Amino acid sequence: MPNDVAAQEMTPGILSLLPLFYVGWSDSVLSPSEMKVIHQKLESFSFLSPAEKEYLIRWTDPSSPPDEATFKQWVSVMREYSQSLPDDKKTSLVELGLEIASSQSVAGQAIRSAETKAALQDIGDALGVDGQVSSNILLSKINGPGSEAQTTDLSFDVNQLKAFLDGDYSQTKDRMRTLLSDPIFAYVTEPDKDKFRLRVLEQTKELAKQGVSAYSFPKKYGGGEKSGDHIVVFEMLGYSDISLAIKFGVQFGLFGGAVYMLGTEKHHRKYLEPMHRAELLGCFAMTETGHGSNVKGLTTTATYDDDSKEIVIHSPDYDSGKEYIGNAMHSTMAAVFAQLIVDGENHGVHAILVPIRDEQGELMPGVTVKDCGYKMGLNGVDNGRLWFDKVRVPKDNLLNRFGDIDNGVYTSPLKNPSKRFFTMLGALVVGRICVGLAGISASKSALTIAIKYALKRRQFNAKDGIPETLVMDYPTHQHRLIPLLAKTYGYYFALRRLAEKYSDNQDGDMRHIETLAAGLKSKATWHTTRTIQECREACGGKGYLKENRFADLKADTDIFTTFEGDNTVLMQLVAKGQLTEFKQSFHDEGYRAVVKYLYTRFSNKLTELNPVQTRNTSAEHILDQDFHKDAFLYREQKLLISLSQRMQDYLKKRIDPYQAFLKCQTHMLASAHAYIDNIVLKSFIKVIDTCEDPGVKTVMTKVCNLYALTIIDEEKGWFLENDYLEGNKTKAIRRVKAKLIQELRPDVEGLVDGFGIPDAMLGAEIV
Amino acid sequence: MPNDVAAQEMTPGILSLLPLFYVGWSDSVLSPSEMKVIHQKLESFSFLSPAEKEYLIRWTDPSSPPDEATFKQWVSVMREYSQSLPDDKKTSLVELGLEIASSQSVAGQAIRSAETKAALQDIGDALGVDGQVSSNILLSKINGPGSEAQTTDLSFDVNQLKAFLDGDYSQTKDRMRTLLSDPIFAYVTEPDKDKFRLRVLEQTKELAKQGVSAYSFPKKYGGGEKSGDHIVVFEMLGYSDISLAIKFGVQFGLFGGAVYMLGTEKHHRKYLEPMHRAELLGCFAMTETGHGSNVKGLTTTATYDDDSKEIVIHSPDYDSGKEYIGNAMHSTMAAVFAQLIVDGENHGVHAILVPIRDEQGELMPGVTVKDCGYKMGLNGVDNGRLWFDKVRVPKDNLLNRFGDIDNGVYTSPLKNPSKRFFTMLGALVVGRICVGLAGISASKSALTIAIKYALKRRQFNAKDGIPETLVMDYPTHQHRLIPLLAKTYGYYFALRRLAEKYSDNQDGDMRHIETLAAGLKSKATWHTTRTIQECREACGGKGYLKENRFADLKADTDIFTTFEGDNTVLMQLVAKGQLTEFKQSFHDEGYRAVVKYLYTRFSNKLTELNPVQTRNTSAEHILDQDFHKDAFLYREQKLLISLSQRMQDYLKKRIDPYQAFLKCQTHMLASAHAYIDNIVLKSFIKVIDTCEDPGVKTVMTKVCNLYALTIIDEEKGWFLENDYLEGNKTKAIRRVKAKLIQELRPDVEGLVDGFGIPDAMLGAEIV
Repeated sequence: MPNDVAAQEMTPGILSLLPLFYVGWSDSVLSPSEMKVIHQKLESFSFLSPAEKEYLIRWTDPSSPPDEATFKQWVSVMREYSQSLPDDKKTSLVELGLEIASSQSVAGQAIRSAETKAALQDIGDALGVDGQVSSNILLSKINGPGSEAQTTDLSFDVNQLKAFLDGDYSQTKDRMRTLLSDPIFAYVTEPDKDKFRLRVLEQTKELAKQGVSAYSFPKKYGGGEKSGDHIVVFEMLGYSDISLAIKFGVQFGLFGGAVYMLGTEKHHRKYLEPMHRAELLGCFAMTETGHGSNVKGLTTTATYDDDSKEIVIHSPDYDSGKEYIGNAMHSTMAAVFAQLIVDGENHGVHAILVPIRDEQGELMPGVTVKDCGYKMGLNGVDNGRLWFDKVRVPKDNLLNRFGDIDNGVYTSPLKNPSKRFFTMLGALVVGRICVGLAGISASKSALTIAIKYALKRRQFNAKDGIPETLVMDYPTHQHRLIPLLAKTYGYYFALRRLAEKYSDNQDGDMRHIETLAAGLKSKATWHTTRTIQECREACGGKGYLKENRFADLKADTDIFTTFEGDNTVLMQLVAKGQLTEFKQSFHDEGYRAVVKYLYTRFSNKLTELNPVQTRNTSAEHILDQDFHKDAFLYREQKLLISLSQRMQDYLKKRIDPYQAFLKCQTHMLASAHAYIDNIVLKSFIKVIDTCEDPGVKTVMTKVCNLYALTIIDEEKGWFLENDYLEGNKTKAIRRVKAKLIQELRPDVEGLVDGFGIPDAMLGAEIV
Repeated sequence: MPNDVAAQEMTPGILSLLPLFYVGWSDSVLSPSEMKVIHQKLESFSFLSPAEKEYLIRWTDPSSPPDEATFKQWVSVMREYSQSLPDDKKTSLVELGLEIASSQSVAGQAIRSAETKAALQDIGDALGVDGQVSSNILLSKINGPGSEAQTTDLSFDVNQLKAFLDGDYSQTKDRMRTLLSDPIFAYVTEPDKDKFRLRVLEQTKELAKQGVSAYSFPKKYGGGEKSGDHIVVFEMLGYSDISLAIKFGVQFGLFGGAVYMLGTEKHHRKYLEPMHRAELLGCFAMTETGHGSNVKGLTTTATYDDDSKEIVIHSPDYDSGKEYIGNAMHSTMAAVFAQLIVDGENHGVHAILVPIRDEQGELMPGVTVKDCGYKMGLNGVDNGRLWFDKVRVPKDNLLNRFGDIDNGVYTSPLKNPSKRFFTMLGALVVGRICVGLAGISASKSALTIAIKYALKRRQFNAKDGIPETLVMDYPTHQHRLIPLLAKTYGYYFALRRLAEKYSDNQDGDMRHIETLAAGLKSKATWHTTRTIQECREACGGKGYLKENRFADLKADTDIFTTFEGDNTVLMQLVAKGQLTEFKQSFHDEGYRAVVKYLYTRFSNKLTELNPVQTRNTSAEHILDQDFHKDAFLYREQKLLISLSQRMQDYLKKRIDPYQAFLKCQTHMLASAHAYIDNIVLKSFIKVIDTCEDPGVKTVMTKVCNLYALTIIDEEKGWFLENDYLEGNKTKAIRRVKAKLIQELRPDVEGLVDGFGIPDAMLGAEIV
């Protein structure tokens, strides 16, 4: 016995709780609501005597925390009682408590029961302390530094997680995993762009041979009629060499998509089959040097000549040249977007199929092509610039689904030119979903490499002669990687849900889907850039070597934030979509009144009517999904309403609408971010609802909570500024978030294994 | 006259203020303190009659803002009166007001005086509205969209700014500008690493031939004895191909530095001259595969053999191989860091010169070298891995300044092994300063390219037929780039000041300089990564092409956050340095009491004693440097004191120190960030104090204010959480920051031209 006082007080009941209290107090934080829960639980425990309860309750008084001498005594007692324990009993504070209590006396043995264990577990939960990291604090104290256990027992079955993530597409995904693990898809460092491009071209043809290029096309042209599977194929290519993904996307998604979505039967019959067999290589010539985001302003012209029944494609100047066109060096045909002029009248942007090379690969007359040269990444893709000098094509080459020339007269099923323009662009929304998902695949690869390395790499130790600490066990490292992992899950679920909505609803109103695609593409690809960067840095010098994959992951995905729509421009589209939807949800006459009403409601509701919400610092409340939903909705709505009000204000003051838009531009971005953050949260929660495996459901709920708390913590400035949260609560959120990260630490390897990325596709030497 | 009411009211005095009030109110924001200032100023204006004053004061009542009809009337009046004005009179609201007032009547002409102009300027300042963007709002209203003026008149002389930035080193800097603009240093895309490396080797030799490699060495060995100039050369190489900068740094800074700083006379005599002439190529073999950050844990051994008077260098296993060693494929010698074992006793890490190749370039017996292969960037640098199999070198090859072997016995002027270790590493602190500065040079290149492109590139317009909007005129674009520009200036000044401190104080106590170097290197290089990324994205697809430089800027500097010390590890060193300095500033006995006192003082001072500080939302106060200094100091001190207190708490509770450190790790990082942010602010202010050119001083003060407000805005969550600021104030800060960004917009080109980067060194096709 360490000393007499201890000998009297340290009954088995008290001993069983000692490890939990020791670790709980070591953080100096017991909030009033945590204490209340602990008191209630202690009172209800039948294995404790009234004297023991009273004694233990004294230990929870935050106004007189245990003093230094008490801590010293606790450590001595635990050290004494635990010496004879086997190591595996020391990995849980609950187990350790039970062992200490029951190892020394018969009375102690009586305490060990399922009921007691559950009771201790409850206390541990209330204190938020059980788990790997907590145990290590204790073990290093009892047995000296270096004795920390490193169990990696997962709380769930990885195969179940993989099955849940793959969902309905597990067959297609597994097929792609096998296919892309084949040596012909292996990563090689090929610094010469021309050789690299030929290699990627061969791989593209191989994919066509396997038939995975045809999922989105009609069966009668050899297609699969499964647009969901097309998206999945692209998502899986995001794990491969991303040059291949983009080459695939250009040929079958953009070029093929233009023929299919903008063309009609005559084009489908003639081109779809050779296109998806990669016999007819084509490019998608939309962007010009002078016009990227502003597609409406393209200056290439397509002038109809009624005498010859031909269309004349012409680039009036250097800046009207088509820019960054993928597949430009290998293609024989281009879908050229140009201002269609019929009888002197401009009918806006239309797509026309223009042969650019003959069968021998020689350029057609009037066509100039220039290689874009080396790029930051994607050097396996042959991007080029194209100019047309009065190139003539038959009238039939006009992709005429939304606009046609009939007897020399322009006709269109869509009379409104603006609506026609957006319908044509909207037909290509799937590209944004694909790019978002491929970005998330790249994020998953980066996180898998960084986390697996951090589970092998050790650096620094507490003292000589003991193993160095695993890099994954540094809190800074956990805080760098685990929240990014949670966000990656969030974007994945949101994009998958969107992909399904898209596949199920191709003929319905696409406007909402377009808004979501624009926003999710943007947020997911920004997230990708940030995640890969953080993972590279987390692997130090090893991350910089090409052999460990980050170099290409980083360089290849960097352009994702720009192509298929510049993210900053897309986020403004999202805000415009929000404003339109918001406006449409009321009658015009009632609009202003409603705005005023909602504004008042939102600015007062939670501070005046619900002080509990702003101040409640209990872990239980902070981990409650209702709190997350409310916070995300509040932010989304308040930003949107104030944006709407501000716009109205400017217009009322006769500010020109364009200037008013400029003045609100940064506000629009903030609103769009809040909107998409909430979309992700809602998707995350909905997808978890469908999970049937209890282990997976539990860990996914934790990951979702971490996603929510990470966003709230990042945006705490806004929440505080708007009085939705008080300072004590944001501090409590930080603590709960930190505990959640600790809790997920032992599951972290399983959470990346669940992605199911074969080693061959990961392609990193250090893993 | 637009209508009768207007005709009566629109006296010249009132007309003169109309443009300012119109634009001021268009933002809907007049804070109480702004109003107070305006009232005071209006009262003091002798050119206004009492009736006019009363009328104008009515316009500033925030409880009854001008209604829609009033706005309509204002616009009509201004449109009417301004029609005959030449365009150049419309670019300033003050000028416009004077013109409108004086153009119609004799009474009006009387109003035009220097005094009135100054008075109007005052009101404009108080409203925070004069400037390019404000004028454009008005002009688009009066003359219709597209009529916005795009003046780029600078408020300062670019040559003066350049002279101020170059300071005492303008001669060396200009010399490097000329030298590096020579075609032999031109950028070429050389995808083959071996050819690229040879090219960079030739460039390195050219620099040696020019003598710029010898600045830090003694004159008697052909050096320049100007370590300040050595740093400047490296900073300037940060504008060139960064492979060259790193090759230069490895050869002359790391290898040369090891010989000079860790060696003694005998080494200097033998090696310094051939080294700085690049005749003796050497590498700096410290990092091992198994040990990067933890240098103390290196496992290569250097065992002294007293019989042969030789030292035996040995790599016991794969992980003890030297890793990422620059110059490894070209060198004939390596400074190898290894555990020095004399008579069976390990004396810690020492450096030994080991010949690795003979004069024919053949590897020496026992030496194995393996190419690290392709990297994300810096492929012009030959990084390799080295292993030693019992390689013998004479005892004299030990770099023996801090540890020697004398008659078979180890001796050292530094008895404490830990102190010895840190002294040896500390001798290399200059490398961190150099890397930080080179990172800032790369940031400057990226910002110059992005800003110059944004001043040419147009996209989207308010309506057809008018020019599209300059990308630089979008607020989102300004908010992306201009705050990064302000931070770049901040880091530049802080690093330059540190470089001078270092040069002036090489023999003094370096601990404080080491702390600053660790922190500034980390923050500056993280900033570099972020800035280049943002600039790349801001240039869209053009930014992705290799021809526009971002690809290499990004890839080459990416490793800056890792090498010369991993940033996350370095920031912990900073926090440790802070804790030590903090502790030392008190006697040990009084320590705890002092902490408690300071803690109380800081947590109460500003909320309880100074509510003005937390609530004052006037622009004047928000732009006051005293406010910035106080906010930065408060954050620095409060984080440090709470960190110190937490550490003490854990130790009191008998938590193992290593575990206590782990528990505080994220807190340590927060403290270190706050500390370095404040160092940058203080340096920025001090450097501006030395500026003699009034134009440069004014614009630099604005840039410094933007730096300060950007950090405060980024950290507003913390400031709100800690009750240092209230929500109304953080909102006001955001508005003032936005106005400041607008104000800097017309100066933005000059602010990058001041860096003085010749086009040849910028190397971007789009500029």
